[in-house]
Amino acid sequence: MSALNATHDASRKSWVETANVAACEFPIQNLPYGIFSTPGAERRAGIAIGDQILDLSVIEATGLLRPDAKATVFNKPDVNAFMALGPNVWRATRAAISDLLDAKNPKLRDNAALRAKALVPMTSAHLHLPLFVRSFTDFFSSREHATNTGSMMRDPANALTPNWLHMPIAYNSRASTVVISGTDIRRPLGQSKPPGTEEPVFGPSRRLDIELEIGAIIGTPSAMGEPLSTAEAFDMIFGYVILNDWSARDIQAWEGQPLGPFQAKIFATTISPWIVTSEALAPFRVKTPDRIKPLLPYLHEAAPYNFDIHLEFAVQPAGAAKASTLARTNYKYMYYSAAQQLTHHAIGGCAMCTGDIIGSGTISGPTKDSLGSMLELSQGGKTPMTLDDGVTRSFLEDGDTVSLTGWAQGKGHRIGFGACAGKITPASTRRFG
Amino acid sequence: MSALNATHDASRKSWVETANVAACEFPIQNLPYGIFSTPGAERRAGIAIGDQILDLSVIEATGLLRPDAKATVFNKPDVNAFMALGPNVWRATRAAISDLLDAKNPKLRDNAALRAKALVPMTSAHLHLPLFVRSFTDFFSSREHATNTGSMMRDPANALTPNWLHMPIAYNSRASTVVISGTDIRRPLGQSKPPGTEEPVFGPSRRLDIELEIGAIIGTPSAMGEPLSTAEAFDMIFGYVILNDWSARDIQAWEGQPLGPFQAKIFATTISPWIVTSEALAPFRVKTPDRIKPLLPYLHEAAPYNFDIHLEFAVQPAGAAKASTLARTNYKYMYYSAAQQLTHHAIGGCAMCTGDIIGSGTISGPTKDSLGSMLELSQGGKTPMTLDDGVTRSFLEDGDTVSLTGWAQGKGHRIGFGACAGKITPASTRRFG
Repeated sequence: MSALNATHDASRKSWVETANVAACEFPIQNLPYGIFSTPGAERRAGIAIGDQILDLSVIEATGLLRPDAKATVFNKPDVNAFMALGPNVWRATRAAISDLLDAKNPKLRDNAALRAKALVPMTSAHLHLPLFVRSFTDFFSSREHATNTGSMMRDPANALTPNWLHMPIAYNSRASTVVISGTDIRRPLGQSKPPGTEEPVFGPSRRLDIELEIGAIIGTPSAMGEPLSTAEAFDMIFGYVILNDWSARDIQAWEGQPLGPFQAKIFATTISPWIVTSEALAPFRVKTPDRIKPLLPYLHEAAPYNFDIHLEFAVQPAGAAKASTLARTNYKYMYYSAAQQLTHHAIGGCAMCTGDIIGSGTISGPTKDSLGSMLELSQGGKTPMTLDDGVTRSFLEDGDTVSLTGWAQGKGHRIGFGACAGKITPASTRRFG
Repeated sequence: MSALNATHDASRKSWVETANVAACEFPIQNLPYGIFSTPGAERRAGIAIGDQILDLSVIEATGLLRPDAKATVFNKPDVNAFMALGPNVWRATRAAISDLLDAKNPKLRDNAALRAKALVPMTSAHLHLPLFVRSFTDFFSSREHATNTGSMMRDPANALTPNWLHMPIAYNSRASTVVISGTDIRRPLGQSKPPGTEEPVFGPSRRLDIELEIGAIIGTPSAMGEPLSTAEAFDMIFGYVILNDWSARDIQAWEGQPLGPFQAKIFATTISPWIVTSEALAPFRVKTPDRIKPLLPYLHEAAPYNFDIHLEFAVQPAGAAKASTLARTNYKYMYYSAAQQLTHHAIGGCAMCTGDIIGSGTISGPTKDSLGSMLELSQGGKTPMTLDDGVTRSFLEDGDTVSLTGWAQGKGHRIGFGACAGKITPASTRRFG
């Protein structure tokens, strides 16, 4: 999946003119997969190109794409069937779509009837969760984030647990509450134990936070009982999304021992609507940071498996004129790559599945303004941040909209994901007992 | 789901004579659901009765069952579609099947042609995982087990963490490696840090253990953002299986901080083949043990939601003449019921799904011979157990077969689950680096 080819050529333009603007997230070099519907037409797969969606179910039906395919995969409500076909099919399909959208290719460009059926303006489409999420596992692989939270939640002198530099630490999270960008997020109810109280209290979380992450999406499965190499793992990853692991810090602090986060995390996880493929990101591969301690051989990387992806997040209170960007960071800071995470995930024999999401863990950089959570930015709530309109935030208030964005910067073009956004709504008022 | 009715009548007999033997696990009062196949015929749903399986796809097609149903649900490779229909359909279907199998009812009994199609001897059927496991969450709700492991792994003076008496503690586990009884279990590879070593080592787990549990299977789903009462939660549970949460204690000890168990648990979980319904277990409902501390109102139980189910586990080394029973315990010891666990699971707004499994956590009783793990029985490996043939075990060796069994004891009949068994095979010999 690493070789660069004509689909990466920075000089390639599309006859979809809006794709050729430097600030556009969806140039012809990107071609991310999503699921959309239109009034009267059910969910199907599309590719984002400029301000349009190329309806892959239409293109597939013409035989212009995958002419030798035995079964259709794009007229479905998720991209799992396509992802399961594996890297050779992904590569060939990308090449065919890139060719079809190339400014020099008249095949679709000059076929007005087909173009009218196959191109859907984004403004008239409704985007859906692009995949069936089989399982969601969240890692904890930013050394800066692990150090910052370890200092706050445990012991500043031993912020990293002894295992951290030897393996990518993770917990299994929840697939059923992974939602697409734009879905409202209800503030969770739960137990917490405020400082100084004798007994826990029940109610809406008061320390609702975000975690800025990248999610790697598993395309091809692995068998139960079979470990993977990092090279095999890298090739199993279909693509990447931006991911917000919403977190209730007060619930987390009270429930977290001895088995880790549960209610604090499983109420919602938001992902961006477009899956940017591993192949689209190939020009942006970088090495993981230098090792502080040598890794066991099963975690050695055969090639650079990290990616240089700029990331940021912003908060916009209800009624505020605009969003305030609170942090800028980069996926390249991850101490463990997604390939290393996946290798570790499978090392004991865990079967990995098409549609699994592997969260990177909160991505924090080395500086004060590159931290991927409000917990870190506000130093556990001690130093609230001032937004552009003067209001302050340590954690999220009802009505706040959080938006995570990111892109890989090419030569004159950007590989973007679409926003990963969600608005906080008030907690359930249901009474018990 | 709590009212007793004719299907629970201890005097009811079946015309399937083998169901009327006192030691039989599958009398007419049980009627558990499973998935089976036969040579040349694909997977479909069945009910265990005596030494036979009643092929529900055949019965459903005749119209004798659910005559007003709009779509078939039993000619499928899992029981999820049936479970999703909810408690009223479960109850009506049970009543219809019980009636059909009643010794006094000639409808199927005297229809030789239909009987030949609908009754399949267990010996000629192959059993499969009965459900599509959407997610698997494992709790930690036996006070004895939590105390025993807390003493060994953390601090004897504070064995229970402060939150334990206030909420059912849990971690999300892994759905993709839940397998049916009889599936071989490969010893996992992984990292551990033996006592006295400076750096972690990589290799096969040396402290492979079992955890004796009951799994509650969610039938009807709940919506994201919507908390549940304990009464609602109880009614969402379709049934129960015996569950073995295989555990690698050396991997667990090294990886467990700060985010809980991961590789130590996700390599395999075995469940018994037959889902015993909540309704079949209705006569065996008991209250949870007395509270040590009062619970928050959302966890209050409106009725007894625990069950009196005898449980035991045995180990048989390769070549041993017979299995040695190592512990006998009971589901009634659980400090939190499955209904309380499910209520807590959903309290922050987590969407619960048809096919979710909620593991009870290891079920340990108050005595030394009622402990549900080898870690506890061997006191962390310090006091190996002697099996019937004189060999000793602290943890499992390759070739060992572990079998978990259990039943609710009625008046002259037993409600059983079928064995939950697995044999340990050697670890992968793949080399890395």
